[in-house]
Amino acid sequence: MQIAETIEAVRSLVSQARRQGRRVGLVPTMGALHRGHVSLIEAAGAACDFVVVSIFVNPTQFGPGEDFQAYPRPMDEDLRTCREAGVDVVFAPSAKQMYRRPQKAWVDVEGLAEGLCGRSRPGHFRGVATVCAKLFNIVGPDAAFFGQKDGQQAAVIRRMAEDLDMPLEIVVCPTVREADGLAMSSRNQYLTARERAVAPLVYKSLEAARAAVDKGERNVEAIQEQMRRVLGQSELIQPEYLSVVDGRTMEELKQVAGRVMIAVAVRLGTARLIDNIVVEPAS
Amino acid sequence: MQIAETIEAVRSLVSQARRQGRRVGLVPTMGALHRGHVSLIEAAGAACDFVVVSIFVNPTQFGPGEDFQAYPRPMDEDLRTCREAGVDVVFAPSAKQMYRRPQKAWVDVEGLAEGLCGRSRPGHFRGVATVCAKLFNIVGPDAAFFGQKDGQQAAVIRRMAEDLDMPLEIVVCPTVREADGLAMSSRNQYLTARERAVAPLVYKSLEAARAAVDKGERNVEAIQEQMRRVLGQSELIQPEYLSVVDGRTMEELKQVAGRVMIAVAVRLGTARLIDNIVVEPAS
Repeated sequence: MQIAETIEAVRSLVSQARRQGRRVGLVPTMGALHRGHVSLIEAAGAACDFVVVSIFVNPTQFGPGEDFQAYPRPMDEDLRTCREAGVDVVFAPSAKQMYRRPQKAWVDVEGLAEGLCGRSRPGHFRGVATVCAKLFNIVGPDAAFFGQKDGQQAAVIRRMAEDLDMPLEIVVCPTVREADGLAMSSRNQYLTARERAVAPLVYKSLEAARAAVDKGERNVEAIQEQMRRVLGQSELIQPEYLSVVDGRTMEELKQVAGRVMIAVAVRLGTARLIDNIVVEPAS
Repeated sequence: MQIAETIEAVRSLVSQARRQGRRVGLVPTMGALHRGHVSLIEAAGAACDFVVVSIFVNPTQFGPGEDFQAYPRPMDEDLRTCREAGVDVVFAPSAKQMYRRPQKAWVDVEGLAEGLCGRSRPGHFRGVATVCAKLFNIVGPDAAFFGQKDGQQAAVIRRMAEDLDMPLEIVVCPTVREADGLAMSSRNQYLTARERAVAPLVYKSLEAARAAVDKGERNVEAIQEQMRRVLGQSELIQPEYLSVVDGRTMEELKQVAGRVMIAVAVRLGTARLIDNIVVEPAS
């Protein structure tokens, strides 16, 4: 496994691979890798012959007062994880390497970025879209792999790639969960034991929503009521949003129709946890 | 010369050329080609082995009430010009091909796009940057060629390419002028004979500015005064702006320092004409 810290270095490694006719997959991450990331690396390995993992805690997607400083950066462990997962190149640039001058060009994905997490994190998806555009342009992959856990992020990036005619495939992989249902997230480490014990209620609220839809419920308020009831089982959990949105446009819905994403964000201690499921009712 | 009307067609032609090891140059145009465009094609031909010219009157860079409908579209003549200039591929997509769904992803280049032409044409450079990002992603050129005549556009695109790490070179070529100094522009055809006769005053005002700087003048107000005097020689000319800006950031200056762009925009009849020069005083 090679480690590239500069744009030039990763470009040269990728162009070598390309000259050998290899299909290149990119897994963009902020490090603190868990089994969810490993599943993305595995998906990339199955679909491509050359896998690049980027590890970069991107400052431009954090707002003031967010956890940019606190975000875990266990680089040695991450490199070991990548090595074991058969990664070809880790691209681990510094912030200075990624932002060599004051950033003036930004990618905005209108309509998809303002709701859900965008409401409490203004500018977050602009930072995400922009850093992904940069990574795509630096690495030049045939495909890039994202987790459904960050469902709005996946929708934003997919739309960016489509609208800007980026010559790559965006692959969204299923959320990986702990045995008790909690979605894998680097931010789960912020939880105390007491908080961790109630954290599965987040996914349970989504299961309750799915059960309601399966029983024929189409009214979003009624579904939210079911979810609120589950989350209310612990007073440690402060819901931020419970939403049903169009699976591609992220538009808030009042009635379930077609392929929808049911998404939830909560505060739990110092952590902010998000999760979602995609539901497509029979009719 | 091949003509591609779809994204798939142009991509397949370019990837054939690339497999033959050719360096690919792109000249993005809105058609109505004149000698200025031909000079870009020649520059592309000198630096690359495979030249793509895109011809696309991009709706998203026109504001309400602007000349999108009236903009000249002499396709047969343009194709002849391209053939004679030795172009390999003309990419001439429809608006439907370029915007297959409602566009939600946009590239904004902050700070460079708001002044000068951006003031009277809000959203213009967002449309320009976005369509160029799309064209770069569709064609995948090694270099793209623009004219200094659209100096702010060149600065916006250069900054976009740098900030988003686009893997191509942006080449800016000198403005081509008529014998009397008028900068070549597809919009010159809007001028009546009477208007055409006074149009050279636009460049003359820039020459007056350069002469003032050469004589040691550094105060922008004094330079503008010189320019205004020249433009005032015809009451047909309505100045929109006379500006001295930093050559890269497009920041308005009060004193000439370093490499600056002196830029002018006027209304002349139904036409809006722009021109600029780059000046770098000795000290």
